[in-house]
Amino acid sequence: MTVRFGLLGAGRIGKVHAKAVTANPLARLVAVADAFEKAATDLAGQYGAEVRSIDAIEKADDIDAVVICTPTDTHADLIERFARAGKAIFCEKPIDLDVERVKACLKVVDAEGATLMVGFNRRFDPHFQAVKQAIDEDRIGEVEMVTIVSRDPGAPPVDYIKRSGGIFRDMTIHDFDMARYLLGEEIDTVTAQASVLVDEAIGTAGDYDSASVMLSTASGKHATISNSRRATYGYDQRIEVHGSEGAVAAENQRPVSIEIANGSGYTRPPLHDFFMTRYTEAYAREICAFVDCVESKSAATPSGADGLVALALAEAALKSVKEGRAVKVSEITGALADKSVFQGR
Amino acid sequence: MTVRFGLLGAGRIGKVHAKAVTANPLARLVAVADAFEKAATDLAGQYGAEVRSIDAIEKADDIDAVVICTPTDTHADLIERFARAGKAIFCEKPIDLDVERVKACLKVVDAEGATLMVGFNRRFDPHFQAVKQAIDEDRIGEVEMVTIVSRDPGAPPVDYIKRSGGIFRDMTIHDFDMARYLLGEEIDTVTAQASVLVDEAIGTAGDYDSASVMLSTASGKHATISNSRRATYGYDQRIEVHGSEGAVAAENQRPVSIEIANGSGYTRPPLHDFFMTRYTEAYAREICAFVDCVESKSAATPSGADGLVALALAEAALKSVKEGRAVKVSEITGALADKSVFQGR
Amino acid sequence: MTVRFGLLGAGRIGKVHAKAVTANPLARLVAVADAFEKAATDLAGQYGAEVRSIDAIEKADDIDAVVICTPTDTHADLIERFARAGKAIFCEKPIDLDVERVKACLKVVDAEGATLMVGFNRRFDPHFQAVKQAIDEDRIGEVEMVTIVSRDPGAPPVDYIKRSGGIFRDMTIHDFDMARYLLGEEIDTVTAQASVLVDEAIGTAGDYDSASVMLSTASGKHATISNSRRATYGYDQRIEVHGSEGAVAAENQRPVSIEIANGSGYTRPPLHDFFMTRYTEAYAREICAFVDCVESKSAATPSGADGLVALALAEAALKSVKEGRAVKVSEITGALADKSVFQGR
Amino acid sequence: MTVRFGLLGAGRIGKVHAKAVTANPLARLVAVADAFEKAATDLAGQYGAEVRSIDAIEKADDIDAVVICTPTDTHADLIERFARAGKAIFCEKPIDLDVERVKACLKVVDAEGATLMVGFNRRFDPHFQAVKQAIDEDRIGEVEMVTIVSRDPGAPPVDYIKRSGGIFRDMTIHDFDMARYLLGEEIDTVTAQASVLVDEAIGTAGDYDSASVMLSTASGKHATISNSRRATYGYDQRIEVHGSEGAVAAENQRPVSIEIANGSGYTRPPLHDFFMTRYTEAYAREICAFVDCVESKSAATPSGADGLVALALAEAALKSVKEGRAVKVSEITGALADKSVFQGR
Repeated sequence: MTVRFGLLGAGRIGKVHAKAVTANPLARLVAVADAFEKAATDLAGQYGAEVRSIDAIEKADDIDAVVICTPTDTHADLIERFARAGKAIFCEKPIDLDVERVKACLKVVDAEGATLMVGFNRRFDPHFQAVKQAIDEDRIGEVEMVTIVSRDPGAPPVDYIKRSGGIFRDMTIHDFDMARYLLGEEIDTVTAQASVLVDEAIGTAGDYDSASVMLSTASGKHATISNSRRATYGYDQRIEVHGSEGAVAAENQRPVSIEIANGSGYTRPPLHDFFMTRYTEAYAREICAFVDCVESKSAATPSGADGLVALALAEAALKSVKEGRAVKVSEITGALADKSVFQGR
Repeated sequence: MTVRFGLLGAGRIGKVHAKAVTANPLARLVAVADAFEKAATDLAGQYGAEVRSIDAIEKADDIDAVVICTPTDTHADLIERFARAGKAIFCEKPIDLDVERVKACLKVVDAEGATLMVGFNRRFDPHFQAVKQAIDEDRIGEVEMVTIVSRDPGAPPVDYIKRSGGIFRDMTIHDFDMARYLLGEEIDTVTAQASVLVDEAIGTAGDYDSASVMLSTASGKHATISNSRRATYGYDQRIEVHGSEGAVAAENQRPVSIEIANGSGYTRPPLHDFFMTRYTEAYAREICAFVDCVESKSAATPSGADGLVALALAEAALKSVKEGRAVKVSEITGALADKSVFQGR
Repeated sequence: MTVRFGLLGAGRIGKVHAKAVTANPLARLVAVADAFEKAATDLAGQYGAEVRSIDAIEKADDIDAVVICTPTDTHADLIERFARAGKAIFCEKPIDLDVERVKACLKVVDAEGATLMVGFNRRFDPHFQAVKQAIDEDRIGEVEMVTIVSRDPGAPPVDYIKRSGGIFRDMTIHDFDMARYLLGEEIDTVTAQASVLVDEAIGTAGDYDSASVMLSTASGKHATISNSRRATYGYDQRIEVHGSEGAVAAENQRPVSIEIANGSGYTRPPLHDFFMTRYTEAYAREICAFVDCVESKSAATPSGADGLVALALAEAALKSVKEGRAVKVSEITGALADKSVFQGR
Repeated sequence: MTVRFGLLGAGRIGKVHAKAVTANPLARLVAVADAFEKAATDLAGQYGAEVRSIDAIEKADDIDAVVICTPTDTHADLIERFARAGKAIFCEKPIDLDVERVKACLKVVDAEGATLMVGFNRRFDPHFQAVKQAIDEDRIGEVEMVTIVSRDPGAPPVDYIKRSGGIFRDMTIHDFDMARYLLGEEIDTVTAQASVLVDEAIGTAGDYDSASVMLSTASGKHATISNSRRATYGYDQRIEVHGSEGAVAAENQRPVSIEIANGSGYTRPPLHDFFMTRYTEAYAREICAFVDCVESKSAATPSGADGLVALALAEAALKSVKEGRAVKVSEITGALADKSVFQGR
């Protein structure tokens, strides 16, 4: 069976997913929708797909699945519409910036029995997957401490910051998901501190650009996250897991691995300077995983619940900064999440 | 302008080139030929191309260029045919295992003014390109010594060895080309030693599996090459250039870059175990470079002359092993090569 | 001038300092005191020094300086005695496990105008010194985030744990000092979480074996510390400083730097497995620095105040764990520390 | 038993050995001799030894062993004198620059049954020892190819070059010894090429500053050596051994291991810039090994025969360069070496 795709949103990330869908022999890109006519036409033309409206895709018999790459504030509505339309759904993170809205959306997904996968692409990075595999193969014993360093090459424009939901919901959310994924146990408390060191305009906009987070689980496992909106040396993305029998770490990635030596020392090039070049392979593997889910009618992961929990952790971090205390995740999620969150893993 | 391609040979390497041609927006795969009907049909089908005979491709008006991936002993004939047919030619190395046959073939190419590029794919590896760039940007001063380590994960079947022309023509030939490329000066003498340490059957077949080579140029620059048909740790491909102001090295490549630590130490995974995964990007860039040449009607490099000189170096190495002495390259090439060899660079 | 030394305590660390004193051409080991006669006799004999009582050393005219390596609970008393006796004092950390006792002791030191240096040996590790130098030479711009990973190869006996003052006062205290040293600004708040993952007996003794700490300064700089009493791969001691213009990191140290490659991958040996082999050079440089202070009559650093602040940070961390909130350092130090703490740096 | 030492020659290397003797609890430095009175007096004074003439040391009853650090042209005579005087002898390499003179000297040593150890200090470098240990523990299978890169930070003065015996006898000789040591089989043929790339004055003096060497054994094992009198990035000393089951490599050493990252990339400091800081530990371990030999009356290694073979390899390399051919080692050594050379290992 070939999975027939509709793509909603032909922007930067839409193009990445269009390429991934096309490269997959089990998938076909049938239609593209975008509010900007030209963006849709160009992208559809490149891959031999049609331009259609979102309505048309919703009603189409020749579409099995959609990839949602539209602006964040449309995600929850579109998920609900396409869940009801019986399409499998891949949605870029986040589902919504508001925890209650996400809960409501997931109830619809659940009621419809829809397939929903959320775009935490880092789970599909080959290096991080190898870290996970080392844990799963019991090469480091019981996981005890996860250490994540995640720094952007530079701060985004303040305009973006204002719409982003803030550093925890926009940037740290990837690290929250990765921490959960690697700890193998739900996070119980979040403690965070944050400040403005990079760009005062970010502070004026009510956000932070530098953050540290500590997470703990009920059994006493730890995770720490270090975030900055600035790293002159490139896109700094490191993960390290310390266990009872050993440790495993994923090193930073650079476009070429040469070393130049002279009187000043030995110099390797800077890291990738952009998330799209750093995570090229992750994006491709992510869509492959989604296609596999749809084809095999198996549960999608990362699931909507994974998206909800990551958002709740972001909320808890923000609360922790503001109140100067450790915040229980259950203060945010209430009774919902604890039931089925890990079922999709 | 789109460059329209015919592909001759739908085997392992033919598939790689078919993918590279298709992925290039300036190129289109029009036709595939192969002695095995099914191989041609499958590959053509995958990329929407037609199956045609070599004759038909030769005469076709809708074909601008060919990629020759047929067995080695057909290369020189096909190059001559397609040079006369006015097609641009990309040919897998080597042009032929015999220096005189290559010379004759290149005379035809020259007489027809044909575009011929020879598949020394390593020149297009991003890491090696970065090494070359460091030299060209004068970051290490004057090149003095090139050190190449090139070891295969395991020995090929003896059947292959017998048809291969021997380790120098089959394996070291890539390193000869790279040494020339990086030294920036023609090689004057070759000294080599070789032995059988890996597989006695290789010795019985009249070949070697372990070799060391020293090259020198007229101005006294050095290159050393270390080859083995065995490396338990993967496909070992290192290049290092030492110059008057510094040095530059390309590190080995592995599929994932993680490190696992425990009481036994810190372990990174083995290297790539296959030339096709190691040089994936090089193959893609190589075809892009060829397309650019054809499109811009500029000289192709590595040229036929580059192929000839590399083969002559292999011949000289073999002679050096057999005679226990330094062999002048001019003993092999005669008067031809010195004229125009570097013009295509 | 030669600085004439009395050594108090001929145990493990006393031997290290005896060697360092003897190796310094500007210093001479005159006398050794220890409650165990044989320990004193052996050590004195090895270096041609005399055995004397602590009283005798206190009153001696031929002793300029003392090195205090006796049990922790004697440190504060001995510092006061030797401060009054006009000797320069090098004391192993900590001065005392109780903040108020340290304050009282430092008042005596201050009143007597005595020279007191506290043994935070890591400030003298060549690699960490190179990190500090990179900061001081402005190679990474303004310091923003300090990341310290500090893990012991294995947990000490529970007996030791009971006398140690707990993980924050015994182990993290070195990291607190290093964080202050590298941040270049006093720490304002401490947030910590801790658990028992390694050895339940440590929990039963009222201590933790795994801890994470976040520090922040008034201007919003961050430091994070990750501690464990277990690391199967050796003595894990890494420091990394991220700044506005770049970053600098000190790598882990191992006894030999070889790499073995085979089908399992590329393996480097484990790290040092003991603090004394890891910090051999640091111990030697520390005593040299103390001798220089005494000789040049300049202020000693790390000072008694440095010892006090590090202890206060440990106290704050413990309070943070127990109360689940960020703790202001001023809650612990009160009014004393803020005056002159950085003067000795 | 304490081994009582006389030191002949109080220059740069004499000082290193004086320190190593003194630091060894089983050894004592009794006397120092030097043609320059002041050099002898200063060094003797520093370590509480006496100044004596070479004659006096030869006849002394309170001297068990000598360390010969005088100029090269005195080595063979002194070895013979002290062999006859019944002293154990540690002699800096080389025994002499002339193979016949060395043979004659070793006959005297042999006739007297004297203990003679030659100062190939690199065998005692902890990293190279770990490489040897990995081979001996069969971690890489059968040794097949040894690769040595050995480059000096800068060329010595031409005056030194003139007295040095040339690059092969002065510099490569260490690498010849190491190649033999690691191959575990005698070298059969030597092929070398050499040129002047660094300093024309070296060429005018009849020497080379850049050299490549290939070695082979009777069973077909290979070694390659790459030498240069220039390396802007420091003292480049790498060894790598490739075997049937894996490979082992010793990495370069630097004074501090930090890494600074910024927009230009990731930079580690240059290597050691001097052989004495690079091989500090090797010098200390070398004297310890000699003391152990003397104490336990066991055979010393590297032996005089090791010194002879290394010199013969240098001679063969020179002959190879001049004659443009592979040179059999037996052309140089004649019948002597093959008998007992490996007995001391």
